[in-house]
Amino acid sequence: MGNCCEGFYGGPKNTNVRLSLPIVCFVWEIAMIVLFGIFIRYDHETDAHWSEFKQEHNISSNIENDFYYRYPSFQDVHVMIFVGFGFLMTFLKRYSFGGVGFNFLIAAFGLQWALLMQGWFHFLDHETGKILIGVENIINADFCCAGTLIAYGALLGKVSPVQLLVVTLFGITLYAVEEYIILSLLHCRDAGGSMVIHAFGGYYGLAISWVLYRPNLHKSQRLNGSVYNSDVFAMIGTLFLWMFWPSFNSAIANHGDGQHRAAINTYLSLAACVLTAVAISSLSQKTGKLDMVHIQNATLAGGVAMGTSAEFMISPYGSLIVGFFCGIISTFGYLLVTPFLEKYLKIQDTCGIHNLHAVPGMLGGFVGAIVAATATESVYGKQGLIDTLGLQGEFASRSPSTQGGYQAAGTCVAIVFGVVGGILVGLILKLPIWGDAPDDNCFDDEVYWEVPEDEESIPPVLEYNNHMNHKNQDLGESNFSVEQI
Amino acid sequence: MGNCCEGFYGGPKNTNVRLSLPIVCFVWEIAMIVLFGIFIRYDHETDAHWSEFKQEHNISSNIENDFYYRYPSFQDVHVMIFVGFGFLMTFLKRYSFGGVGFNFLIAAFGLQWALLMQGWFHFLDHETGKILIGVENIINADFCCAGTLIAYGALLGKVSPVQLLVVTLFGITLYAVEEYIILSLLHCRDAGGSMVIHAFGGYYGLAISWVLYRPNLHKSQRLNGSVYNSDVFAMIGTLFLWMFWPSFNSAIANHGDGQHRAAINTYLSLAACVLTAVAISSLSQKTGKLDMVHIQNATLAGGVAMGTSAEFMISPYGSLIVGFFCGIISTFGYLLVTPFLEKYLKIQDTCGIHNLHAVPGMLGGFVGAIVAATATESVYGKQGLIDTLGLQGEFASRSPSTQGGYQAAGTCVAIVFGVVGGILVGLILKLPIWGDAPDDNCFDDEVYWEVPEDEESIPPVLEYNNHMNHKNQDLGESNFSVEQI
Amino acid sequence: MGNCCEGFYGGPKNTNVRLSLPIVCFVWEIAMIVLFGIFIRYDHETDAHWSEFKQEHNISSNIENDFYYRYPSFQDVHVMIFVGFGFLMTFLKRYSFGGVGFNFLIAAFGLQWALLMQGWFHFLDHETGKILIGVENIINADFCCAGTLIAYGALLGKVSPVQLLVVTLFGITLYAVEEYIILSLLHCRDAGGSMVIHAFGGYYGLAISWVLYRPNLHKSQRLNGSVYNSDVFAMIGTLFLWMFWPSFNSAIANHGDGQHRAAINTYLSLAACVLTAVAISSLSQKTGKLDMVHIQNATLAGGVAMGTSAEFMISPYGSLIVGFFCGIISTFGYLLVTPFLEKYLKIQDTCGIHNLHAVPGMLGGFVGAIVAATATESVYGKQGLIDTLGLQGEFASRSPSTQGGYQAAGTCVAIVFGVVGGILVGLILKLPIWGDAPDDNCFDDEVYWEVPEDEESIPPVLEYNNHMNHKNQDLGESNFSVEQI
Repeated sequence: MGNCCEGFYGGPKNTNVRLSLPIVCFVWEIAMIVLFGIFIRYDHETDAHWSEFKQEHNISSNIENDFYYRYPSFQDVHVMIFVGFGFLMTFLKRYSFGGVGFNFLIAAFGLQWALLMQGWFHFLDHETGKILIGVENIINADFCCAGTLIAYGALLGKVSPVQLLVVTLFGITLYAVEEYIILSLLHCRDAGGSMVIHAFGGYYGLAISWVLYRPNLHKSQRLNGSVYNSDVFAMIGTLFLWMFWPSFNSAIANHGDGQHRAAINTYLSLAACVLTAVAISSLSQKTGKLDMVHIQNATLAGGVAMGTSAEFMISPYGSLIVGFFCGIISTFGYLLVTPFLEKYLKIQDTCGIHNLHAVPGMLGGFVGAIVAATATESVYGKQGLIDTLGLQGEFASRSPSTQGGYQAAGTCVAIVFGVVGGILVGLILKLPIWGDAPDDNCFDDEVYWEVPEDEESIPPVLEYNNHMNHKNQDLGESNFSVEQI
Repeated sequence: MGNCCEGFYGGPKNTNVRLSLPIVCFVWEIAMIVLFGIFIRYDHETDAHWSEFKQEHNISSNIENDFYYRYPSFQDVHVMIFVGFGFLMTFLKRYSFGGVGFNFLIAAFGLQWALLMQGWFHFLDHETGKILIGVENIINADFCCAGTLIAYGALLGKVSPVQLLVVTLFGITLYAVEEYIILSLLHCRDAGGSMVIHAFGGYYGLAISWVLYRPNLHKSQRLNGSVYNSDVFAMIGTLFLWMFWPSFNSAIANHGDGQHRAAINTYLSLAACVLTAVAISSLSQKTGKLDMVHIQNATLAGGVAMGTSAEFMISPYGSLIVGFFCGIISTFGYLLVTPFLEKYLKIQDTCGIHNLHAVPGMLGGFVGAIVAATATESVYGKQGLIDTLGLQGEFASRSPSTQGGYQAAGTCVAIVFGVVGGILVGLILKLPIWGDAPDDNCFDDEVYWEVPEDEESIPPVLEYNNHMNHKNQDLGESNFSVEQI
Repeated sequence: MGNCCEGFYGGPKNTNVRLSLPIVCFVWEIAMIVLFGIFIRYDHETDAHWSEFKQEHNISSNIENDFYYRYPSFQDVHVMIFVGFGFLMTFLKRYSFGGVGFNFLIAAFGLQWALLMQGWFHFLDHETGKILIGVENIINADFCCAGTLIAYGALLGKVSPVQLLVVTLFGITLYAVEEYIILSLLHCRDAGGSMVIHAFGGYYGLAISWVLYRPNLHKSQRLNGSVYNSDVFAMIGTLFLWMFWPSFNSAIANHGDGQHRAAINTYLSLAACVLTAVAISSLSQKTGKLDMVHIQNATLAGGVAMGTSAEFMISPYGSLIVGFFCGIISTFGYLLVTPFLEKYLKIQDTCGIHNLHAVPGMLGGFVGAIVAATATESVYGKQGLIDTLGLQGEFASRSPSTQGGYQAAGTCVAIVFGVVGGILVGLILKLPIWGDAPDDNCFDDEVYWEVPEDEESIPPVLEYNNHMNHKNQDLGESNFSVEQI
């Protein structure tokens, strides 16, 4: 292990992030503290003045605090972001540390920046100039991170942690802007984020990956695959994403029937998606064997595609139909499109986000447009139609069909932001200062992690010495390093 | 890997499911879409007309929507079904893909069919002829799948995915009928399903396994065991089942004290169960070593056995006593009964569902009968007794002791349905068309899954080529396959 | 495997727990049943009389039952205790069974004893002499177990399961007493338990570990480390702890803004903590590589340190600052203090609880003291200040600054209880009757678990026989054992 590190010094590329990573982390965290100090305060339901606020607004009970409407869903979303996305990316045989660990780093930084960016656009109290936060904000912050984590799926194993923090900083920023345009200016509905999260995040990652194309990536081919245990670990991610997706799509939907309906529609769509993904996966092999890549990923497309229309009256069978087709499309994507993208479009998409997020997200946006356009008062009820499509205030005059048009436009905005933003960020990441790995060391945790010797690989005694040396060396290194600070 | 597949063509049994599996998945999913289109609609709390419904019925707040009473419990149950059952079945050294993957497939299909079957029996709106669904229905659908997943535990490693879908189709159907008889006709109480889920599912699986007895299964003995990591993976399943069982038993209990009491009783019973399971496990080995099989399974028996009586006033110490004995009985089951069943009754029970579900479920049914029979107004209060035992309407005249008798009868109905239904389904599965594995290839993921080469097993270089060939072969195969469609 | 056991008979130490473990489990579980029978009953919100209670107290709806305020948080806490702590301790290459399995045993016993101990101190109904329990009690019982599980972190791999049950019995008892002194007598606020859980548990474990110092532990050095997969397993524990910590700190906070604020403060502190932990970890290695030990542990320090002040108006940026420094302090602890403790203070701290619990817990206590002391009516509002600092009744006259003084005193009480209690328990554990492992067999599951043969290690055929012998031997053993009972 030690040697392999020395190796890099002489090597063509310097993967040493010992200065850059700590500096970026410290600078950004200090910036967060300063900005939070200036801008962020508790909202009325989080502040200790709540008891007075309650009386003033005749709120009958503490249970009416938004916390009790949304916190359980928040925790499910939180699990999807950290365990769901994190473990889904442990499938590579020697990049599980990077998969789950960098996912952790990205999200922990991203959610802080997201609270600020989204706050400025949506939650600024114009009297005081403060952003007032509560449970809905932390759900939105987690959503915002999802966009960047999706992009990470395309870059998995090929970029340095410093690059990932840059991807996150810009990803969150772009997200907040496109979300403002789509939700506030175009006044689209997108409770589960088919457009703002998945379509944006997917194309953002693909565009970055296109700019960072590595013609000699095949040199790391030996590591670009799974082993038995890593595939089982990845199933932890898949299942937590799959199970909690109903909470994801319902977390910020309207109280009452809105959240209720969003959860049930998503639940149904995901179930249908599993069956068609299995069917196509089996069809694709001579002997009908299933491929873990499809089971781990394509089974989730039904949740992505329901992001926009989950809160609409798409009806239970409508949800099944969406899941049905997304399972097919996504699995074919893994079979045919991913190889095609790599071979002809020079896009190396490690996790196949094109098939799981980009395309299903785009489809979800258009499905949402159609469902919104065809909404009628008889189906929704007078008030229901207004609440569900958000046709209040200045938008009261908007007809469902017009709303449908705006929804479609919103989807395009998300895609454009993803592609253009991704290209710009990709160009920044091409600078030779970020410490990314050489082509023959991609998908390898050794580059950025202290990886333990594996028992199996060495006879006990030998390993014992080995281990001792390593231990001493460690202490040596760390003392040394600490003196250096 | 490729070879092993070729192998089967020459072999005695054809495990190729490339036609059967996709056809079954597509046909059944299309059937679901059609039936959902005809029958399933949103209920009042899920429909966009909720805001009007609220006014008409003087519902003061959105928080009164059943979603907020039951959704957190639903998500816990959902985790038990997919991660709990799924990972509990990853303990076999080379069948983890099949354990968690087929569990996923069964439940995803099963819950759709369950919504229809249970809907017809319990939630049909007789004016419109529609089934109106909400959060309670999706909890019930997950419960319904549990019955079949329990049965899968007995069949693990010995059947094909197509057979499992047949087991599911009939399992869900039988479940819905026995549930209707037990809950509606006999008017039993069974919030956590000791009878309708565990006793039924357990005996259903054992009966199928008895019909499918494989005299030469010892040929796969080398694979019928765990390795270190697979046992740790299985603990993920065990713990999520154990932790969320209080939600399972309280999910559809009465609002208020019903859910509250069910959760606490289950929590206590499970805690007691762990200590006695550990005690017996340690006693059973010369040096007092613990056996992972017992820790993974017998510790859960206390939750199974509280399924019926959790919502009753069994009292905290009563719950501990139930857990105390179930831990002992279940562990002895693994030590003595499972070997006995295999040797003398020709029942091969891979996961030992006899000890974890069948027997504790049956006991739970009878415990429930006794607790119901001994219920008094002084303990429950007038209204409490009526609500808890459901002695309203046409059943208002029923005495607690009579109710106890019906509870006992209900348990017998569940067992009979399990045994008889299992035998019939077993006979169907004996047809030679299902592509199940030969006796020397049971418990082996190679049969139905693309299994990655394991790094350890081969030197890097060799593996590298190997991998490349495999990759090309894959592409070859899939293009080929896709052209074929 | 069989042999290795025989080995111990001749060996210097007898690790046979076949009598002691079952006896302790049975005796204690029977004691629990008796004591629960005498003392524990359902509280008003759990009892079937709830419907009458509701009317008498004009409670408008079932949703006002405390179950709906706290149960989702309870389930998150429950996951932290069993999966969070359990999997965090699977990081050792050959002690994963012990890590997650004994954690399971400790918590399952501990929570029962905790319900009694805490009940006597806090929930005794003085008319009836009964302890009335509901959802808040089971949350507190889980909290109480956390203290002992923290201590287990220091002892991991070096003690027998019987010793762990002794550690638990005394740990829970000491916890209940110090909690009574701190929360009731000193009337401190400590919703998330920085003082009562983390500071106490941390010093309790360190003190025990100091008394049980093993000068020749290096003989097990070969096993005192992780392998690739065990580090990934440990990340499951880390992430579930990290994600659900907001629920931990808010679970028993005041309804409404109290719970809401506690969750958001903890969420922010944890996020900041990740960035600084990563920064210091990277700084500590020549090439800036990250160390899994830091990522798995130091990232959690921010949650520990917010335990006391999470419900206070510490403000969002205040939370970030706490996380910022705790990430730094904790990571330096792993780099410098843990080796120092072992070398000079003779404290062998397997999981580094000193850096994750003891120090951050102590800091959290003092941070809480400062925040409480500086509380003002303008920030909290009149009622808010009273509710948040609990300045009602006999404490109405207490000023915030006085309250701050009591908070600081409470922290010292927790530490003293941990150190003194730990030394006494350590001395008890030095008795040669507990079956702990010899110095050259620490960190080894073989001692207390039936460990499966690992496929890789032996050629299939050989393993096959091996397996069969083993199977027979097993049956032999168990029949034998059962006859013996």
